[in-house]
Amino acid sequence: METRKNALHLTRLGINTYKEAVIYIREDCYICKAEGFEAQARIKLTIDGENFIIATLHTVKSDLLQPGQAGLSEYAWQLLNAKENDRIFISHPAPLSSFHEVRGKIFGKKFKQGVLDAIIKDVVKGRLSDIQLSAFITACAANRLDYTEIQDLTEAMVNAGDRIVWPSKIVVDKHCVGGLPGNRTTLIAVPIVAAFGLTIPKTSSRAITSSAGTADTMETLAPVDLNFEQMQNVVNQEQGCIVWGGAVSLSPADDILIRVERVLNLDSQEQMIASVLSKKIAAGSTHVIIDVPIGSTSKVRSQAEADDLKHALEQVAKNLGLEARVVFTEGIQPVGCGIGPALEARDVLAVLQCQRHAPQDLRERSLFLAGKILEFSPDIPEGEGQSVAVQILDEGLAWKKFQEICSAQGGMRIPPKAEHTCPYLADRDGKVTGIDNRRIAKLAKLAGAPRSKAAGVDLHVKIGANIEVGQPLFTIHADTQGELNYALGFLKIDGSIIKMGEIT
Amino acid sequence: METRKNALHLTRLGINTYKEAVIYIREDCYICKAEGFEAQARIKLTIDGENFIIATLHTVKSDLLQPGQAGLSEYAWQLLNAKENDRIFISHPAPLSSFHEVRGKIFGKKFKQGVLDAIIKDVVKGRLSDIQLSAFITACAANRLDYTEIQDLTEAMVNAGDRIVWPSKIVVDKHCVGGLPGNRTTLIAVPIVAAFGLTIPKTSSRAITSSAGTADTMETLAPVDLNFEQMQNVVNQEQGCIVWGGAVSLSPADDILIRVERVLNLDSQEQMIASVLSKKIAAGSTHVIIDVPIGSTSKVRSQAEADDLKHALEQVAKNLGLEARVVFTEGIQPVGCGIGPALEARDVLAVLQCQRHAPQDLRERSLFLAGKILEFSPDIPEGEGQSVAVQILDEGLAWKKFQEICSAQGGMRIPPKAEHTCPYLADRDGKVTGIDNRRIAKLAKLAGAPRSKAAGVDLHVKIGANIEVGQPLFTIHADTQGELNYALGFLKIDGSIIKMGEIT
Repeated sequence: METRKNALHLTRLGINTYKEAVIYIREDCYICKAEGFEAQARIKLTIDGENFIIATLHTVKSDLLQPGQAGLSEYAWQLLNAKENDRIFISHPAPLSSFHEVRGKIFGKKFKQGVLDAIIKDVVKGRLSDIQLSAFITACAANRLDYTEIQDLTEAMVNAGDRIVWPSKIVVDKHCVGGLPGNRTTLIAVPIVAAFGLTIPKTSSRAITSSAGTADTMETLAPVDLNFEQMQNVVNQEQGCIVWGGAVSLSPADDILIRVERVLNLDSQEQMIASVLSKKIAAGSTHVIIDVPIGSTSKVRSQAEADDLKHALEQVAKNLGLEARVVFTEGIQPVGCGIGPALEARDVLAVLQCQRHAPQDLRERSLFLAGKILEFSPDIPEGEGQSVAVQILDEGLAWKKFQEICSAQGGMRIPPKAEHTCPYLADRDGKVTGIDNRRIAKLAKLAGAPRSKAAGVDLHVKIGANIEVGQPLFTIHADTQGELNYALGFLKIDGSIIKMGEIT
Repeated sequence: METRKNALHLTRLGINTYKEAVIYIREDCYICKAEGFEAQARIKLTIDGENFIIATLHTVKSDLLQPGQAGLSEYAWQLLNAKENDRIFISHPAPLSSFHEVRGKIFGKKFKQGVLDAIIKDVVKGRLSDIQLSAFITACAANRLDYTEIQDLTEAMVNAGDRIVWPSKIVVDKHCVGGLPGNRTTLIAVPIVAAFGLTIPKTSSRAITSSAGTADTMETLAPVDLNFEQMQNVVNQEQGCIVWGGAVSLSPADDILIRVERVLNLDSQEQMIASVLSKKIAAGSTHVIIDVPIGSTSKVRSQAEADDLKHALEQVAKNLGLEARVVFTEGIQPVGCGIGPALEARDVLAVLQCQRHAPQDLRERSLFLAGKILEFSPDIPEGEGQSVAVQILDEGLAWKKFQEICSAQGGMRIPPKAEHTCPYLADRDGKVTGIDNRRIAKLAKLAGAPRSKAAGVDLHVKIGANIEVGQPLFTIHADTQGELNYALGFLKIDGSIIKMGEIT
């Protein structure tokens, strides 16, 4: 019933619920009574009568609001482009037919064509509540989507946002499925490939469940919140960029889904494939290398799982007209020394500047991946990409290109350093036999990464190193004493991050 | 870090979020910065240092709060038993190990013994966010719990609340799995059984996805929000009662889960079995009749589904020391005429008072079920229960007992009548060949039921009736013109509630 009578006047309460649309209305409001709205009801809101959102009702029984007033969470305020004192019309939303299909999936039905498109449209328009989003993600997790459905989901996510078209015929890209702390090869491979002359418009994500995403690390070196036009200018000028995907509105559904996945600490294969491929397709890529590290404590734990993922990724990509090549790398321990945005940036600079003490594992891995990407060029035969990459890096062309990209993105920055550090010392002699990727990432997160850019863990040893009692194994970096204590508290309960055996 | 420094002073904002714990803190609060809390973070809250809850953070960037103040949603305020200006201590919650197990279930793992107990304890203590609750419910839906897990869930739900012990050796009960509008046999069977002298302490639920629950209908005739002690007094005095289960704190997890199920419009078999059996066991029942109506548009749609449910219910009940007998009834059309709390109450009174025009289907069904319950008595041989029930009803003993129960519960009430009614007329001659239970319940809900007690649908025809053009098929009852319009709007789009064929 979208009548004039159902109008309230908006006032800005300034409550931030992140990406959840909430409307605040007085409990004694006549519209609530007439329409039968109670706390937690889902309500349709419109200002101009055309665009609408669906918000969750929180009722107010105090004088936060005057009679006839309503408040909105900041997210709802933005979605509706509201202004103080705007009239807002409230009504019952029609049942969301797209959510009806989610219920079908919970009971094992397949999503028919077009259904995922409708669901993702509703997601982007803020029409699903947190409870509904969570059910959608849970129902799709754990191999409950087949290839056709993953393909439909990917296309739906592409359709829900912008899509870039580049002048070049070949547009390359790379992606790592993650799970390996410190593995920041993108920041080295992109300038190598761009220096060679291939177009590589890299959009990266922020961390989901890890201690840093590529965008988080890059942000310590240059702005990454570029809009669509700014990103195009950088790539047209420098052949490459490293920006945050969320700011250019490529696959905007992804950020909304990721927020819920983060609460659930759930990162399912289907959602991951759709997330990765939708961003690549929306970014206008034609060829992409996907790095899958394998290791018992990284995201992909076995060769069988990796083969399965490779097949799914390459097949779905092919059906969508994208050439994806999955490569496997070792995932038994962190890459480089730093774990956390600024500490990883420090390692990246050391490799780009060909410093003597630069982490060799990060250098080699970056060159391997850059070589694979270069082989998408018709000018480079298979097997010869890596030697070209080595040449570009060692001649300083990659470092020069990286500085130019940072400059084009808004100016190069110096990564911050943490206020508080604390080394963790070996309690006996021994040889490092294993490093737990999950636990070390958790330690970095407890210290404040990726939110605190300078926070994280600086690893001083690798598997195979001989250690003497009292030698520092790693150093925790944190911005506040509270976070440092928090990380140290975790170490006390669960100190088995670095496994030590007898010296051989 | 539960330090004195992390204290804020509470002020009551009066924001009602129903059963979601929310804390409101200023964006510029030093604790948020020090601890790295951002909007939607989950935060551990305690006032006395012992009891804690976990709440979702909504940040405030206006002057709703003064520096050093924090607000709580009303639910969090109650859970913490807060007072104005109390000091509240905030800190990072330890990762919820119970939720870790929910993630395992999403990936198909079985819940080990004790795990569901831990999860349900956290649910009752308000430690799971809506997103987490939704994932738990979704992950358990659609046959993803085996008998052992359903049994564990049931016991966990019993353990999380109070449990009643009665002096009688035999304590009987009944339950209907629902899905059939108007099927209010409980209000007739309970006084028959109590008049006979068996103990029947009936706790009922409010509607989940239907237009009325037994508690909603009973509430139009007497108070149902009795506490534990009040309920015991009624049963000790009258042998029976019909109260709302939520108010006596039997299986309190159920209400929290049901809120989320309602948003998802999901009512899964596993959750239903645990919900039903946990309430019966907590209420101290030893013998229970479970009525399963079968019909293509009722909750259980096929004999196969019903057999499956019967087996699961009886088996799980047996393992828990409860004798459950599942009986099947016809579920092809509504029972009685009224659909909605007050309209159903009117039908119940007509049957209890043996009025000539009382709905015969409701009378017969109630007598059948009462008979089955009476056969739990060692004094009544199998097959003879129903004739005893007929005698008790026809002699006016059930009506007398019902009035005594209402009086003991706080005084009998007269069901309200709706402000607005509108008949729906047949647009042609014909014979009624079908009535869609789901659509008619939806119509009653759109008209305002069960929230508006007087709202609903009054059905004037049954399957097999010959109809003339212009004859009223049903009448919509609503408290407000808005809700009446809303129901009429649905009829315009989706008017195929009553199927008509040729007159034969």
